[in-house]
Amino acid sequence: GVTEEQVHLIVDQALKRYSEDRVGMVDYALESAGASVINTRCSETYETKTALLSLFGIPLWYQSQSPRVILQPDVNPGNCWAFRGSQGFAVIRLSSPIRPTAVTLEHIPRALSPQGVIPSAPKDFTVYGLKEERDEEGLLLGRFTYDQDGNPIQTFLLEGDAVGTFQLVELRVLSNWGHPEYTCIYRFRVHGEPAH
Amino acid sequence: GVTEEQVHLIVDQALKRYSEDRVGMVDYALESAGASVINTRCSETYETKTALLSLFGIPLWYQSQSPRVILQPDVNPGNCWAFRGSQGFAVIRLSSPIRPTAVTLEHIPRALSPQGVIPSAPKDFTVYGLKEERDEEGLLLGRFTYDQDGNPIQTFLLEGDAVGTFQLVELRVLSNWGHPEYTCIYRFRVHGEPAH
Amino acid sequence: GVTEEQVHLIVDQALKRYSEDRVGMVDYALESAGASVINTRCSETYETKTALLSLFGIPLWYQSQSPRVILQPDVNPGNCWAFRGSQGFAVIRLSSPIRPTAVTLEHIPRALSPQGVIPSAPKDFTVYGLKEERDEEGLLLGRFTYDQDGNPIQTFLLEGDAVGTFQLVELRVLSNWGHPEYTCIYRFRVHGEPAH
Ligand SMILES: [K+]
Ligand SMILES: [K+]
Ligand SMILES: [K+]
Repeated sequence: GVTEEQVHLIVDQALKRYSEDRVGMVDYALESAGASVINTRCSETYETKTALLSLFGIPLWYQSQSPRVILQPDVNPGNCWAFRGSQGFAVIRLSSPIRPTAVTLEHIPRALSPQGVIPSAPKDFTVYGLKEERDEEGLLLGRFTYDQDGNPIQTFLLEGDAVGTFQLVELRVLSNWGHPEYTCIYRFRVHGEPAH
Repeated sequence: GVTEEQVHLIVDQALKRYSEDRVGMVDYALESAGASVINTRCSETYETKTALLSLFGIPLWYQSQSPRVILQPDVNPGNCWAFRGSQGFAVIRLSSPIRPTAVTLEHIPRALSPQGVIPSAPKDFTVYGLKEERDEEGLLLGRFTYDQDGNPIQTFLLEGDAVGTFQLVELRVLSNWGHPEYTCIYRFRVHGEPAH
Repeated sequence: GVTEEQVHLIVDQALKRYSEDRVGMVDYALESAGASVINTRCSETYETKTALLSLFGIPLWYQSQSPRVILQPDVNPGNCWAFRGSQGFAVIRLSSPIRPTAVTLEHIPRALSPQGVIPSAPKDFTVYGLKEERDEEGLLLGRFTYDQDGNPIQTFLLEGDAVGTFQLVELRVLSNWGHPEYTCIYRFRVHGEPAH
Protein backbone atom coordinates (compact mmCIF):
# COMPACT_ATOMS: atom_id res chain seq x y z
CA GLY A 1 0.00 0.00 0.00
CA VAL A 2 1.00 3.63 -0.46
CA THR A 3 1.52 6.13 2.35
CA GLU A 4 -0.40 9.35 2.85
CA GLU A 5 2.74 11.25 1.90
CA GLN A 6 2.95 9.38 -1.40
CA VAL A 7 -0.69 10.18 -2.16
CA HIS A 8 -0.03 13.88 -1.57
CA LEU A 9 2.99 13.68 -3.88
CA ILE A 10 0.97 12.04 -6.67
CA VAL A 11 -1.83 14.60 -6.29
CA ASP A 12 0.61 17.53 -6.28
CA GLN A 13 2.37 16.24 -9.41
CA ALA A 14 -0.95 15.79 -11.18
CA LEU A 15 -2.11 19.32 -10.30
CA LYS A 16 1.27 20.75 -11.30
CA ARG A 17 0.90 19.19 -14.76
CA TYR A 18 -2.74 20.29 -14.92
CA SER A 19 -1.67 23.87 -14.28
CA GLU A 20 1.01 23.65 -16.98
CA ASP A 21 -1.57 24.06 -19.76
CA ARG A 22 -2.54 20.40 -19.12
CA VAL A 23 0.25 18.92 -21.25
CA GLY A 24 3.42 20.52 -19.84
CA MET A 25 4.76 21.55 -23.24
CA VAL A 26 5.33 24.99 -24.76
CA ASP A 27 2.64 25.89 -27.30
CA TYR A 28 4.28 27.85 -30.13
CA ALA A 29 0.86 28.38 -31.72
CA LEU A 30 -0.55 30.27 -28.71
CA GLU A 31 -1.98 33.64 -29.74
CA SER A 32 -1.17 35.42 -26.49
CA ALA A 33 2.47 34.44 -26.97
CA GLY A 34 2.57 35.91 -30.48
CA ALA A 35 1.23 33.33 -32.93
CA SER A 36 -1.49 34.06 -35.48
CA VAL A 37 -3.62 32.42 -38.16
CA ILE A 38 -2.45 34.05 -41.38
CA ASN A 39 -4.44 32.13 -43.97
CA THR A 40 -7.36 29.73 -44.10
CA ARG A 41 -7.09 28.94 -47.83
CA CYS A 42 -10.51 28.15 -49.24
CA SER A 43 -12.09 27.24 -45.88
CA GLU A 44 -15.50 28.80 -45.39
CA THR A 45 -16.27 29.91 -41.84
CA TYR A 46 -19.66 28.50 -40.88
CA GLU A 47 -22.31 30.74 -39.34
CA THR A 48 -23.38 28.49 -36.52
CA LYS A 49 -25.54 31.29 -35.11
CA THR A 50 -25.10 29.73 -31.73
CA ALA A 51 -23.37 32.55 -29.89
CA LEU A 52 -26.08 35.11 -30.28
CA LEU A 53 -25.95 38.46 -28.55
CA SER A 54 -29.37 39.87 -27.96
CA LEU A 55 -30.89 42.73 -26.02
CA PHE A 56 -34.10 41.72 -24.31
CA GLY A 57 -35.00 39.26 -27.00
CA ILE A 58 -33.98 41.27 -30.06
CA PRO A 59 -31.00 39.63 -31.78
CA LEU A 60 -28.20 42.17 -32.20
CA TRP A 61 -25.37 40.12 -33.51
CA TYR A 62 -24.95 36.63 -34.87
CA GLN A 63 -21.47 35.93 -33.71
CA SER A 64 -19.40 33.54 -35.74
CA GLN A 65 -16.06 32.70 -34.24
CA SER A 66 -12.96 33.68 -36.14
CA PRO A 67 -10.23 31.15 -36.91
CA ARG A 68 -8.17 32.95 -34.22
CA VAL A 69 -10.00 31.04 -31.49
CA ILE A 70 -8.13 27.84 -32.33
CA LEU A 71 -5.01 29.52 -30.90
CA GLN A 72 -6.78 30.55 -27.68
CA PRO A 73 -6.95 28.36 -24.54
CA ASP A 74 -10.62 28.94 -23.69
CA VAL A 75 -12.35 25.73 -24.76
CA ASN A 76 -15.77 26.25 -23.23
CA PRO A 77 -18.48 24.88 -25.55
CA GLY A 78 -18.92 27.22 -28.53
CA ASN A 79 -15.42 28.74 -28.38
CA CYS A 80 -14.31 27.01 -31.57
CA TRP A 81 -13.80 27.82 -35.22
CA ALA A 82 -16.48 26.15 -37.33
CA PHE A 83 -15.95 25.71 -41.05
CA ARG A 84 -18.42 24.45 -43.62
CA GLY A 85 -18.17 20.78 -44.55
CA SER A 86 -15.51 18.42 -43.33
CA GLN A 87 -12.37 19.92 -44.89
CA GLY A 88 -10.68 23.04 -43.59
CA PHE A 89 -7.25 24.63 -43.55
CA ALA A 90 -5.33 26.97 -41.30
CA VAL A 91 -1.83 28.34 -41.89
CA ILE A 92 -0.34 29.43 -38.59
CA ARG A 93 2.59 31.74 -38.02
CA LEU A 94 4.21 30.43 -34.84
CA SER A 95 5.50 32.73 -32.11
CA SER A 96 9.06 31.79 -33.14
CA PRO A 97 10.85 29.46 -35.58
CA ILE A 98 11.09 25.93 -34.21
CA ARG A 99 11.94 22.38 -35.14
CA PRO A 100 8.41 20.92 -34.76
CA THR A 101 8.16 17.70 -32.76
CA ALA A 102 4.44 17.32 -31.94
CA VAL A 103 0.98 18.86 -32.30
CA THR A 104 -2.00 18.78 -29.95
CA LEU A 105 -5.62 18.87 -31.09
CA GLU A 106 -8.46 19.50 -28.62
CA HIS A 107 -12.25 19.22 -28.68
CA ILE A 108 -14.83 19.44 -25.92
CA PRO A 109 -15.40 16.29 -23.85
CA ARG A 110 -18.37 14.15 -24.87
CA ALA A 111 -19.89 14.79 -21.43
CA LEU A 112 -20.28 18.48 -22.32
CA SER A 113 -21.86 17.86 -25.71
CA PRO A 114 -25.63 17.45 -26.15
CA GLN A 115 -26.48 13.79 -26.91
CA GLY A 116 -23.01 12.82 -25.62
CA VAL A 117 -21.53 12.66 -29.10
CA ILE A 118 -19.09 14.92 -30.96
CA PRO A 119 -19.83 14.53 -34.69
CA SER A 120 -18.38 17.98 -35.47
CA ALA A 121 -14.95 16.98 -34.13
CA PRO A 122 -12.13 16.62 -36.68
CA LYS A 123 -11.14 13.07 -37.61
CA ASP A 124 -8.31 12.69 -40.15
CA PHE A 125 -5.85 15.54 -40.51
CA THR A 126 -2.38 16.33 -41.79
CA VAL A 127 0.24 18.83 -40.67
CA TYR A 128 2.68 20.60 -42.98
CA GLY A 129 5.70 22.79 -42.43
CA LEU A 130 5.88 25.76 -44.82
CA LYS A 131 8.81 27.97 -45.75
CA GLU A 132 6.57 30.79 -46.90
CA GLU A 133 2.86 31.51 -46.90
CA ARG A 134 2.32 30.95 -50.62
CA ASP A 135 3.82 27.45 -50.44
CA GLU A 136 1.12 25.23 -51.85
CA GLU A 137 2.53 22.03 -50.50
CA GLY A 138 5.20 22.37 -47.88
CA LEU A 139 6.72 19.42 -46.06
CA LEU A 140 4.36 16.76 -44.71
CA LEU A 141 5.09 16.43 -41.00
CA GLY A 142 2.46 13.81 -40.25
CA ARG A 143 -0.97 12.36 -40.95
CA PHE A 144 -3.10 11.58 -37.90
CA THR A 145 -6.57 10.67 -36.66
CA TYR A 146 -8.28 12.42 -33.75
CA ASP A 147 -10.06 9.71 -31.73
CA GLN A 148 -13.65 10.63 -30.82
CA ASP A 149 -13.52 8.13 -27.95
CA GLY A 150 -10.19 9.33 -26.56
CA ASN A 151 -9.10 12.06 -24.21
CA PRO A 152 -10.38 15.50 -25.33
CA ILE A 153 -6.74 16.65 -25.53
CA GLN A 154 -4.73 14.46 -27.92
CA THR A 155 -1.04 14.91 -28.72
CA PHE A 156 0.52 13.51 -31.91
CA LEU A 157 4.26 13.05 -32.39
CA LEU A 158 5.66 14.27 -35.69
CA GLU A 159 7.85 12.00 -37.77
CA GLY A 160 11.58 12.16 -37.94
CA ASP A 161 14.22 14.27 -36.31
CA ALA A 162 15.59 16.04 -39.31
CA VAL A 163 12.53 17.94 -40.45
CA GLY A 164 14.22 21.30 -40.32
CA THR A 165 13.09 24.61 -38.92
CA PHE A 166 9.72 26.28 -39.61
CA GLN A 167 7.78 29.32 -38.47
CA LEU A 168 4.76 28.45 -40.61
CA VAL A 169 2.71 25.33 -39.95
CA GLU A 170 -0.45 24.30 -41.78
CA LEU A 171 -3.26 22.22 -40.32
CA ARG A 172 -5.37 20.44 -42.91
CA VAL A 173 -8.52 18.75 -41.64
CA LEU A 174 -9.61 16.05 -44.09
CA SER A 175 -12.72 14.59 -42.45
CA ASN A 176 -14.94 14.83 -39.37
CA TRP A 177 -16.84 12.40 -37.14
CA GLY A 178 -20.07 12.61 -39.08
CA HIS A 179 -21.57 16.08 -38.86
CA PRO A 180 -23.14 16.77 -42.27
CA GLU A 181 -22.77 20.56 -42.17
CA TYR A 182 -19.68 21.72 -40.34
CA THR A 183 -16.53 20.84 -38.42
CA CYS A 184 -15.32 22.59 -35.27
CA ILE A 185 -11.74 23.14 -34.14
CA TYR A 186 -11.45 24.12 -30.49
CA ARG A 187 -7.68 24.38 -30.11
CA PHE A 188 -4.57 23.46 -32.06
CA ARG A 189 -1.09 23.59 -30.54
CA VAL A 190 2.36 23.15 -32.01
CA HIS A 191 5.29 21.91 -29.92
CA GLY A 192 8.99 21.70 -30.73
CA GLU A 193 12.53 22.77 -30.08
CA PRO A 194 13.51 26.42 -30.49
CA ALA A 195 15.67 27.09 -33.54
CA HIS A 196 19.24 28.02 -32.66
CA GLY B 1 -4.60 -0.27 1.45
CA VAL B 2 -4.74 1.05 -2.11
CA THR B 3 -2.01 0.62 -4.72
CA GLU B 4 -0.15 3.44 -6.44
CA GLU B 5 -1.96 2.55 -9.64
CA GLN B 6 -5.32 2.96 -7.93
CA VAL B 7 -4.28 6.37 -6.59
CA HIS B 8 -3.35 7.50 -10.11
CA LEU B 9 -6.71 6.26 -11.36
CA ILE B 10 -8.63 8.17 -8.69
CA VAL B 11 -6.61 11.34 -9.36
CA ASP B 12 -7.10 11.05 -13.13
CA GLN B 13 -10.85 10.55 -12.75
CA ALA B 14 -11.10 13.57 -10.44
CA LEU B 15 -9.16 15.80 -12.87
CA LYS B 16 -11.23 14.54 -15.80
CA ARG B 17 -14.41 15.59 -14.01
CA TYR B 18 -12.78 18.87 -12.96
CA SER B 19 -12.00 19.63 -16.60
CA GLU B 20 -15.57 18.82 -17.65
CA ASP B 21 -16.85 22.17 -16.37
CA ARG B 22 -16.55 20.73 -12.83
CA VAL B 23 -19.91 18.92 -12.92
CA GLY B 24 -19.72 16.79 -16.08
CA MET B 25 -23.11 17.90 -17.39
CA VAL B 26 -24.04 19.93 -20.45
CA ASP B 27 -24.97 23.53 -19.55
CA TYR B 28 -27.80 24.62 -21.84
CA ALA B 29 -27.64 28.12 -20.32
CA LEU B 30 -24.03 28.73 -21.40
CA GLU B 31 -23.69 31.97 -23.36
CA SER B 32 -20.83 30.79 -25.56
CA ALA B 33 -23.00 27.87 -26.67
CA GLY B 34 -25.87 30.15 -27.67
CA ALA B 35 -27.95 30.93 -24.57
CA SER B 36 -28.90 34.47 -23.52
CA VAL B 37 -30.65 36.40 -20.77
CA ILE B 38 -33.68 37.87 -22.51
CA ASN B 39 -35.47 39.55 -19.61
CA THR B 40 -34.79 40.49 -16.00
CA ARG B 41 -38.34 41.60 -15.19
CA CYS B 42 -38.28 44.33 -12.57
CA SER B 43 -34.80 43.47 -11.23
CA GLU B 44 -32.63 46.52 -10.73
CA THR B 45 -28.95 46.01 -11.54
CA TYR B 46 -26.92 47.31 -8.61
CA GLU B 47 -23.99 49.67 -9.19
CA THR B 48 -21.46 47.98 -6.96
CA LYS B 49 -18.77 50.33 -8.24
CA THR B 50 -16.28 47.59 -7.53
CA ALA B 51 -14.90 46.97 -10.99
CA LEU B 52 -13.60 50.44 -11.59
CA LEU B 53 -11.49 51.24 -14.61
CA SER B 54 -9.20 54.17 -14.01
CA LEU B 55 -6.29 55.77 -15.79
CA PHE B 56 -3.58 56.77 -13.34
CA GLY B 57 -6.04 57.50 -10.57
CA ILE B 58 -8.78 59.18 -12.60
CA PRO B 59 -11.89 56.99 -12.66
CA LEU B 60 -12.99 56.42 -16.25
CA TRP B 61 -15.80 53.97 -15.90
CA TYR B 62 -17.83 52.54 -13.08
CA GLN B 63 -18.45 49.11 -14.46
CA SER B 64 -21.56 47.32 -13.37
CA GLN B 65 -21.80 43.78 -14.61
CA SER B 66 -24.63 42.91 -16.98
CA PRO B 67 -26.95 39.98 -16.25
CA ARG B 68 -25.12 38.18 -19.09
CA VAL B 69 -22.29 37.26 -16.73
CA ILE B 70 -24.43 34.64 -14.99
CA LEU B 71 -24.19 32.59 -18.20
CA GLN B 72 -20.39 32.92 -18.37
CA PRO B 73 -17.96 30.47 -16.70
CA ASP B 74 -15.52 33.04 -15.26
CA VAL B 75 -16.35 33.16 -11.55
CA ASN B 76 -13.41 35.18 -10.27
CA PRO B 77 -14.55 37.52 -7.47
CA GLY B 78 -16.57 40.40 -8.95
CA ASN B 79 -17.63 38.57 -12.12
CA CYS B 80 -21.26 38.36 -11.01
CA TRP B 81 -24.56 40.08 -11.67
CA ALA B 82 -25.58 42.15 -8.65
CA PHE B 83 -29.18 43.26 -8.27
CA ARG B 84 -30.63 45.60 -5.67
CA GLY B 85 -32.26 43.96 -2.65
CA SER B 86 -32.77 40.26 -2.22
CA GLN B 87 -35.19 39.46 -5.03
CA GLY B 88 -34.20 39.24 -8.67
CA PHE B 89 -35.33 37.55 -11.85
CA ALA B 90 -33.72 36.31 -15.03
CA VAL B 91 -35.47 34.75 -18.02
CA ILE B 92 -32.99 32.70 -20.01
CA ARG B 93 -33.32 31.49 -23.56
CA LEU B 94 -31.45 28.19 -23.60
CA SER B 95 -29.17 27.15 -26.45
CA SER B 96 -31.77 24.57 -27.50
CA PRO B 97 -35.14 23.21 -26.31
CA ILE B 98 -34.70 20.60 -23.57
CA ARG B 99 -36.55 18.61 -20.98
CA PRO B 100 -34.98 20.23 -17.89
CA THR B 101 -33.71 17.85 -15.20
CA ALA B 102 -31.46 19.97 -12.95
CA VAL B 103 -30.00 23.43 -12.37
CA THR B 104 -26.66 24.49 -10.88
CA LEU B 105 -26.11 27.68 -8.90
CA GLU B 106 -22.59 28.92 -8.11
CA HIS B 107 -21.08 31.56 -5.83
CA ILE B 108 -17.47 32.26 -4.86
CA PRO B 109 -15.99 30.13 -2.07
CA ARG B 110 -16.03 31.68 1.41
CA ALA B 111 -12.22 31.51 1.42
CA LEU B 112 -12.14 34.08 -1.42
CA SER B 113 -14.58 36.47 0.23
CA PRO B 114 -13.42 39.20 2.65
CA GLN B 115 -14.42 38.31 6.23
CA GLY B 116 -14.95 34.70 5.08
CA VAL B 117 -18.70 35.14 4.70
CA ILE B 118 -20.97 35.36 1.65
CA PRO B 119 -24.01 37.43 2.69
CA SER B 120 -24.68 38.50 -0.91
CA ALA B 121 -25.14 34.89 -2.05
CA PRO B 122 -28.67 33.84 -3.06
CA LYS B 123 -30.61 31.73 -0.53
CA ASP B 124 -34.13 30.66 -1.53
CA PHE B 125 -34.94 30.49 -5.23
CA THR B 126 -37.42 28.97 -7.65
CA VAL B 127 -37.08 27.83 -11.25
CA TYR B 128 -39.84 28.02 -13.86
CA GLY B 129 -40.25 26.69 -17.38
CA LEU B 130 -41.87 29.19 -19.77
CA LYS B 131 -43.52 28.63 -23.11
CA GLU B 132 -43.05 32.23 -24.20
CA GLU B 133 -41.31 35.27 -22.78
CA ARG B 134 -44.45 37.11 -21.70
CA ASP B 135 -45.58 34.15 -19.59
CA GLU B 136 -46.11 35.62 -16.16
CA GLU B 137 -46.13 32.31 -14.37
CA GLY B 138 -44.92 29.34 -16.30
CA LEU B 139 -44.53 25.90 -14.79
CA LEU B 140 -42.82 25.64 -11.40
CA LEU B 141 -39.91 23.23 -11.83
CA GLY B 142 -38.61 23.44 -8.27
CA ARG B 143 -38.04 25.52 -5.14
CA PHE B 144 -34.59 25.26 -3.59
CA THR B 145 -32.17 26.75 -1.07
CA TYR B 146 -28.53 27.54 -1.85
CA ASP B 147 -26.50 26.52 1.22
CA GLN B 148 -23.98 29.18 2.30
CA ASP B 149 -21.97 26.49 4.10
CA GLY B 150 -21.95 24.03 1.20
CA ASN B 151 -19.83 23.55 -1.90
CA PRO B 152 -19.60 26.77 -3.99
CA ILE B 153 -21.13 24.80 -6.90
CA GLN B 154 -24.52 23.32 -5.95
CA THR B 155 -26.72 21.24 -8.26
CA PHE B 156 -30.47 20.85 -7.65
CA LEU B 157 -32.59 18.13 -9.24
CA LEU B 158 -35.87 19.26 -10.74
CA GLU B 159 -39.07 17.46 -9.84
CA GLY B 160 -40.78 14.90 -11.97
CA ASP B 161 -40.07 13.30 -15.31
CA ALA B 162 -42.97 14.58 -17.29
CA VAL B 163 -42.34 18.31 -17.14
CA GLY B 164 -42.32 18.79 -20.87
CA THR B 165 -39.95 20.64 -23.16
CA PHE B 166 -38.82 24.25 -22.69
CA GLN B 167 -36.39 26.69 -24.29
CA LEU B 168 -37.16 29.44 -21.76
CA VAL B 169 -36.28 29.02 -18.09
CA GLU B 170 -36.75 31.64 -15.37
CA LEU B 171 -34.64 31.92 -12.24
CA ARG B 172 -36.36 33.75 -9.38
CA VAL B 173 -34.19 34.57 -6.40
CA LEU B 174 -36.41 35.12 -3.34
CA SER B 175 -33.91 35.89 -0.56
CA ASN B 176 -30.19 36.19 0.16
CA TRP B 177 -27.87 35.30 3.05
CA GLY B 178 -28.16 38.65 4.78
CA HIS B 179 -26.66 41.41 2.65
CA PRO B 180 -28.86 44.48 3.21
CA GLU B 181 -28.24 46.11 -0.17
CA TYR B 182 -27.72 43.61 -2.96
CA THR B 183 -27.54 39.99 -4.09
CA CYS B 184 -24.93 38.54 -6.48
CA ILE B 185 -25.38 35.71 -8.95
CA TYR B 186 -22.09 34.30 -10.22
CA ARG B 187 -23.33 31.53 -12.49
CA PHE B 188 -26.55 29.70 -13.24
CA ARG B 189 -26.67 26.55 -15.36
CA VAL B 190 -29.53 24.49 -16.72
CA HIS B 191 -29.17 20.78 -17.43
CA GLY B 192 -31.51 18.36 -19.18
CA GLU B 193 -32.26 16.04 -22.03
CA PRO B 194 -32.34 17.38 -25.60
CA ALA B 195 -35.85 17.55 -27.07
CA HIS B 196 -36.41 15.04 -29.86
CA GLY C 1 -1.44 2.21 4.03
CA VAL C 2 -4.25 4.64 3.29
CA THR C 3 -7.80 3.65 2.37
CA GLU C 4 -9.58 4.50 -0.87
CA GLU C 5 -11.80 6.86 1.13
CA GLN C 6 -8.76 8.73 2.44
CA VAL C 7 -7.39 9.10 -1.10
CA HIS C 8 -10.67 10.60 -2.27
CA LEU C 9 -10.58 13.00 0.68
CA ILE C 10 -7.03 14.13 -0.11
CA VAL C 11 -7.90 14.58 -3.80
CA ASP C 12 -11.07 16.52 -2.99
CA GLN C 13 -9.23 18.82 -0.59
CA ALA C 14 -6.51 19.46 -3.19
CA LEU C 15 -9.06 20.29 -5.91
CA LYS C 16 -11.00 22.51 -3.50
CA ARG C 17 -7.85 24.53 -2.81
CA TYR C 18 -7.01 24.54 -6.54
CA SER C 19 -10.42 26.04 -7.30
CA GLU C 20 -9.95 28.70 -4.61
CA ASP C 21 -7.64 30.74 -6.84
CA ARG C 22 -4.93 28.15 -6.07
CA VAL C 23 -3.88 29.72 -2.73
CA GLY C 24 -7.17 29.94 -0.80
CA MET C 25 -6.68 33.57 0.20
CA VAL C 26 -8.59 36.70 -0.77
CA ASP C 27 -6.72 38.79 -3.35
CA TYR C 28 -7.33 42.47 -2.56
CA ALA C 29 -5.40 43.44 -5.70
CA LEU C 30 -7.78 41.61 -8.07
CA GLU C 31 -9.04 43.92 -10.81
CA SER C 32 -12.44 42.26 -11.18
CA ALA C 33 -13.05 42.85 -7.46
CA GLY C 34 -12.27 46.57 -7.77
CA ALA C 35 -8.50 47.04 -7.55
CA SER C 36 -6.49 49.04 -10.09
CA VAL C 37 -2.94 50.04 -11.00
CA ILE C 38 -2.88 53.80 -10.46
CA ASN C 39 0.75 54.62 -11.14
CA THR C 40 3.81 52.95 -12.60
CA ARG C 41 6.28 55.73 -11.68
CA CYS C 42 9.08 55.87 -14.22
CA SER C 43 8.61 52.28 -15.48
CA GLU C 44 8.68 52.03 -19.24
CA THR C 45 6.30 49.48 -20.73
CA TYR C 46 8.26 47.31 -23.16
CA GLU C 47 6.94 46.65 -26.65
CA THR C 48 7.54 42.93 -26.78
CA LYS C 49 5.68 42.72 -30.09
CA THR C 50 4.80 39.19 -29.21
CA ALA C 51 1.02 39.42 -29.18
CA LEU C 52 0.59 40.52 -32.73
CA LEU C 53 -2.81 40.81 -34.34
CA SER C 54 -2.63 40.39 -38.06
CA LEU C 55 -5.07 39.94 -40.90
CA PHE C 56 -3.87 37.38 -43.41
CA GLY C 57 -0.25 38.19 -42.78
CA ILE C 58 -0.47 41.97 -42.59
CA PRO C 59 0.31 43.13 -39.04
CA LEU C 60 -2.52 45.32 -37.77
CA TRP C 61 -1.58 45.94 -34.20
CA TYR C 62 1.47 45.39 -32.08
CA GLN C 63 -0.15 44.73 -28.77
CA SER C 64 1.77 45.60 -25.66
CA GLN C 65 0.11 44.55 -22.46
CA SER C 66 -0.95 47.24 -20.02
CA PRO C 67 0.14 47.10 -16.36
CA ARG C 68 -3.50 46.17 -15.60
CA VAL C 69 -2.80 42.56 -16.56
CA ILE C 70 -0.83 41.97 -13.36
CA LEU C 71 -4.15 42.22 -11.49
CA GLN C 72 -5.88 39.72 -13.80
CA PRO C 73 -5.91 35.93 -13.19
CA ASP C 74 -5.19 34.82 -16.77
CA VAL C 75 -1.55 33.76 -16.73
CA ASN C 76 -1.29 32.09 -20.11
CA PRO C 77 2.11 32.82 -21.69
CA GLY C 78 2.21 36.43 -22.91
CA ASN C 79 -0.47 37.75 -20.53
CA CYS C 80 2.02 39.74 -18.49
CA TRP C 81 3.19 43.32 -18.11
CA ALA C 82 6.67 43.71 -19.55
CA PHE C 83 8.77 46.73 -18.57
CA ARG C 84 12.14 47.77 -19.97
CA GLY C 85 15.18 46.74 -17.97
CA SER C 86 15.09 45.00 -14.62
CA GLN C 87 13.50 47.66 -12.42
CA GLY C 88 9.82 48.50 -12.46
CA PHE C 89 7.16 49.91 -10.17
CA ALA C 90 3.42 49.59 -9.75
CA VAL C 91 1.25 51.44 -7.24
CA ILE C 92 -1.95 49.50 -6.69
CA ARG C 93 -5.20 50.77 -5.22
CA LEU C 94 -6.64 47.74 -3.43
CA SER C 95 -10.34 46.86 -3.57
CA SER C 96 -10.64 47.92 0.09
CA PRO C 97 -8.39 49.12 2.94
CA ILE C 98 -6.66 46.22 4.66
CA ARG C 99 -3.94 45.34 7.12
CA PRO C 100 -1.57 43.60 4.65
CA THR C 101 -0.20 40.24 5.75
CA ALA C 102 1.21 38.65 2.58
CA VAL C 103 1.75 39.09 -1.15
CA THR C 104 1.84 36.52 -3.96
CA LEU C 105 3.95 36.84 -7.10
CA GLU C 106 3.38 34.56 -10.10
CA HIS C 107 5.24 33.75 -13.31
CA ILE C 108 4.70 31.05 -15.93
CA PRO C 109 6.12 27.60 -15.15
CA ARG C 110 9.50 26.80 -16.71
CA ALA C 111 7.83 23.96 -18.61
CA LEU C 112 5.78 26.51 -20.59
CA SER C 113 8.72 28.75 -21.43
CA PRO C 114 10.87 28.20 -24.54
CA GLN C 115 14.31 26.80 -23.54
CA GLY C 116 12.85 25.87 -20.13
CA VAL C 117 14.21 28.99 -18.46
CA ILE C 118 12.52 32.17 -17.18
CA PRO C 119 15.13 34.95 -17.37
CA SER C 120 12.43 37.64 -17.62
CA ALA C 121 10.96 36.66 -14.22
CA PRO C 122 11.38 39.14 -11.36
CA LYS C 123 14.04 38.31 -8.76
CA ASP C 124 14.47 40.79 -5.89
CA PHE C 125 11.52 43.00 -5.01
CA THR C 126 10.16 45.13 -2.20
CA VAL C 127 6.62 45.95 -1.13
CA TYR C 128 5.52 49.26 0.41
CA GLY C 129 2.33 50.49 2.03
CA LEU C 130 1.40 54.05 1.00
CA LYS C 131 -0.96 56.50 2.63
CA GLU C 132 -1.44 58.50 -0.56
CA GLU C 133 -0.35 58.14 -4.17
CA ARG C 134 2.29 60.88 -4.09
CA ASP C 135 4.08 59.23 -1.15
CA GLU C 136 7.61 58.77 -2.40
CA GLU C 137 8.58 56.27 0.21
CA GLY C 138 5.78 54.76 2.23
CA LEU C 139 6.32 52.02 4.79
CA LEU C 140 8.52 49.09 3.81
CA LEU C 141 6.45 45.93 4.29
CA GLY C 142 9.08 43.47 3.12
CA ARG C 143 11.98 42.66 0.82
CA PHE C 144 11.83 39.32 -0.94
CA THR C 145 13.30 37.16 -3.70
CA TYR C 146 11.20 35.28 -6.26
CA ASP C 147 12.84 31.86 -6.75
CA GLN C 148 13.23 30.90 -10.42
CA ASP C 149 13.44 27.23 -9.39
CA GLY C 150 10.41 27.31 -7.11
CA ASN C 151 6.68 26.94 -7.59
CA PRO C 152 5.33 29.39 -10.23
CA ILE C 153 3.05 30.83 -7.52
CA GLN C 154 5.07 32.09 -4.54
CA THR C 155 3.58 33.69 -1.41
CA PHE C 156 5.65 35.95 0.87
CA LEU C 157 4.63 36.82 4.43
CA LEU C 158 4.94 40.49 5.37
CA GLU C 159 6.77 41.48 8.51
CA GLY C 160 5.15 42.44 11.75
CA ASP C 161 1.60 42.62 12.95
CA ALA C 162 1.34 46.30 13.62
CA VAL C 163 1.88 47.63 10.11
CA GLY C 164 -1.34 49.58 10.05
CA THR C 165 -4.02 49.87 7.41
CA PHE C 166 -3.42 50.66 3.74
CA GLN C 167 -5.41 50.87 0.53
CA LEU C 168 -2.34 51.67 -1.57
CA VAL C 169 0.45 49.13 -1.99
CA GLU C 170 3.54 49.56 -4.16
CA LEU C 171 5.45 46.73 -5.80
CA ARG C 172 9.06 47.61 -6.64
CA VAL C 173 10.94 45.08 -8.75
CA LEU C 174 14.69 45.54 -8.26
CA SER C 175 16.21 42.84 -10.48
CA ASN C 176 15.32 39.96 -12.79
CA TRP C 177 16.73 36.49 -13.55
CA GLY C 178 19.00 37.63 -16.32
CA HIS C 179 17.00 38.92 -19.27
CA PRO C 180 19.01 41.83 -20.71
CA GLU C 181 16.05 43.77 -22.13
CA TYR C 182 12.89 43.40 -20.09
CA THR C 183 11.14 41.94 -17.05
CA CYS C 184 7.65 40.41 -17.04
CA ILE C 185 5.12 40.42 -14.23
CA TYR C 186 2.32 37.91 -14.71
CA ARG C 187 0.30 38.44 -11.54
CA PHE C 188 0.68 40.18 -8.20
CA ARG C 189 -1.73 39.63 -5.32
CA VAL C 190 -2.09 41.29 -1.93
CA HIS C 191 -3.56 39.46 1.05
CA GLY C 192 -4.56 40.74 4.48
CA GLU C 193 -7.20 41.41 7.07
CA PRO C 194 -10.05 43.80 6.28
CA ALA C 195 -9.84 47.11 8.14
CA HIS C 196 -12.53 47.50 10.79
K1 LIG D 1 -10.50 28.01 -28.19
K1 LIG E 1 -19.73 34.56 -14.19
K1 LIG F 1 -2.17 38.15 -15.87
